[in-house]
Amino acid sequence: MQVKKTHRCFSGTLSFCEHDSEVTKTKMNFSKFVPDGPVKGAIIWLSGLTCSEENFMAKAGAFSHLCAAGLAVYCPDTSPRGLDLPKEREHWDFGLAAGFYVDALTDGYRDHYRMYSYVSEEFYAVVRREHSKIAISGHSMGGHGALVIGLRNPEKFASVSAFAPIVNPTQCPWGVKAFTGYLGPDQKLWKDYDSCELIASGAHHPHKILVDQGSSDAFLQEQLLASRLPEVARATEQKIELRLRDGYDHSYYFISSFIAEHIRFHAQRLSTAKSD
Amino acid sequence: MQVKKTHRCFSGTLSFCEHDSEVTKTKMNFSKFVPDGPVKGAIIWLSGLTCSEENFMAKAGAFSHLCAAGLAVYCPDTSPRGLDLPKEREHWDFGLAAGFYVDALTDGYRDHYRMYSYVSEEFYAVVRREHSKIAISGHSMGGHGALVIGLRNPEKFASVSAFAPIVNPTQCPWGVKAFTGYLGPDQKLWKDYDSCELIASGAHHPHKILVDQGSSDAFLQEQLLASRLPEVARATEQKIELRLRDGYDHSYYFISSFIAEHIRFHAQRLSTAKSD
Repeated sequence: MQVKKTHRCFSGTLSFCEHDSEVTKTKMNFSKFVPDGPVKGAIIWLSGLTCSEENFMAKAGAFSHLCAAGLAVYCPDTSPRGLDLPKEREHWDFGLAAGFYVDALTDGYRDHYRMYSYVSEEFYAVVRREHSKIAISGHSMGGHGALVIGLRNPEKFASVSAFAPIVNPTQCPWGVKAFTGYLGPDQKLWKDYDSCELIASGAHHPHKILVDQGSSDAFLQEQLLASRLPEVARATEQKIELRLRDGYDHSYYFISSFIAEHIRFHAQRLSTAKSD
Repeated sequence: MQVKKTHRCFSGTLSFCEHDSEVTKTKMNFSKFVPDGPVKGAIIWLSGLTCSEENFMAKAGAFSHLCAAGLAVYCPDTSPRGLDLPKEREHWDFGLAAGFYVDALTDGYRDHYRMYSYVSEEFYAVVRREHSKIAISGHSMGGHGALVIGLRNPEKFASVSAFAPIVNPTQCPWGVKAFTGYLGPDQKLWKDYDSCELIASGAHHPHKILVDQGSSDAFLQEQLLASRLPEVARATEQKIELRLRDGYDHSYYFISSFIAEHIRFHAQRLSTAKSD
């Protein structure tokens, strides 16, 4: 692992790193912020379409709250880079910076676009070497990733939250496009990467999942479909708290407005979670 | 004035705007964040090289502190845009996004690159229509702008601060290049835009000026020359508080670490300043 750049920031250190991934068979970029002094645990933050490992660090305004809570945050990139796969660079919502946190099955992509395994196993292990208690969160495509990875790996992630997640990607244009491209036309194979489908078929996280969603988010009605998550969960044991935030949109101005509450939510869970 | 986009953000509204400037004879972009409820005053924030009206809003993490203090912030762009002047687009440190807050005298530039008058008169008037008490701050080239404009207009700006300002531009490569290009070779004409020269020749702000500077800023030794400001001020009545911040660099990670202290500094001044 190579540290490419560091910044002193609040009472901690922000590092931009690169490592060789066995899962994606590429180099992968990530960032981490670690407060000085005792740290209780770490949040893995998954970013949205077009983002890199930098967006959350530059725009979320999370550092003071992470320092106060004694939590680190680790942000992986949103796809492998440096490849030249068919159609990889033609769309902003497919390919580069749009890995959708799935393990691809289609030609070309299956060898590298394995962001589900990358985050839940390889990147998780990178974080786990330094922190025993780990939460997961993210925004939009990354909110989808956080929900799916958290629901499928509750033993690894003590706490799960999301901002404006794509909760039912098998039923929205972004998801259909990405899953067709990465997983192929057999829609049965898509369900493992759909939070609503997962909860409906019994996937369960033992703790309440926190979701914030702006009411003025331009993607809410067609792509994100937030209300379906508590609707599906109502028939199950899964606790979901969906908070509709009046007037907020899809941007980091929305995320930064409420990131302190998510950090406190995770800090509370991580301080009571058992270490193994 | 046209509002191009708004974002709900914390307990306030962020707006990206455009207006026709009589000073630059172009459209000019600016952003403003205004908290809900009673507002005590406004900070004009001047950004650095390569920036626009967006950087501070996206990266400074200032909103919660502005809401708590009851202050608005207004960010002008860093140069006129939409022109096609000779050499305007060839350099990242001259021309576009590098207006240096001077009134240019050279061919072509003198008709449009008048950022000193734009900020201290026309943009000031835009802010003044909505707020009676106004502070000024900025970063790097914008820190230079805040110091120069604050020192030359103490009756307009109740409070002045800067992050990593270029304090002695007549003596550093960035300043020499910009001043040669905008003001021409006669160095006597440069002194009106140099904080150290202004203080040495009697310019005075009645209140302490606050300056934060990272000790690990890569531009400190060659371009910013922070220590010269208190050195010059020592022989005068001008109070300067220069705080050297151990390990911090030139980025917004540095600014965001200390912006809360600058907002509180300005809030205190603006709450005691007389309204006219």
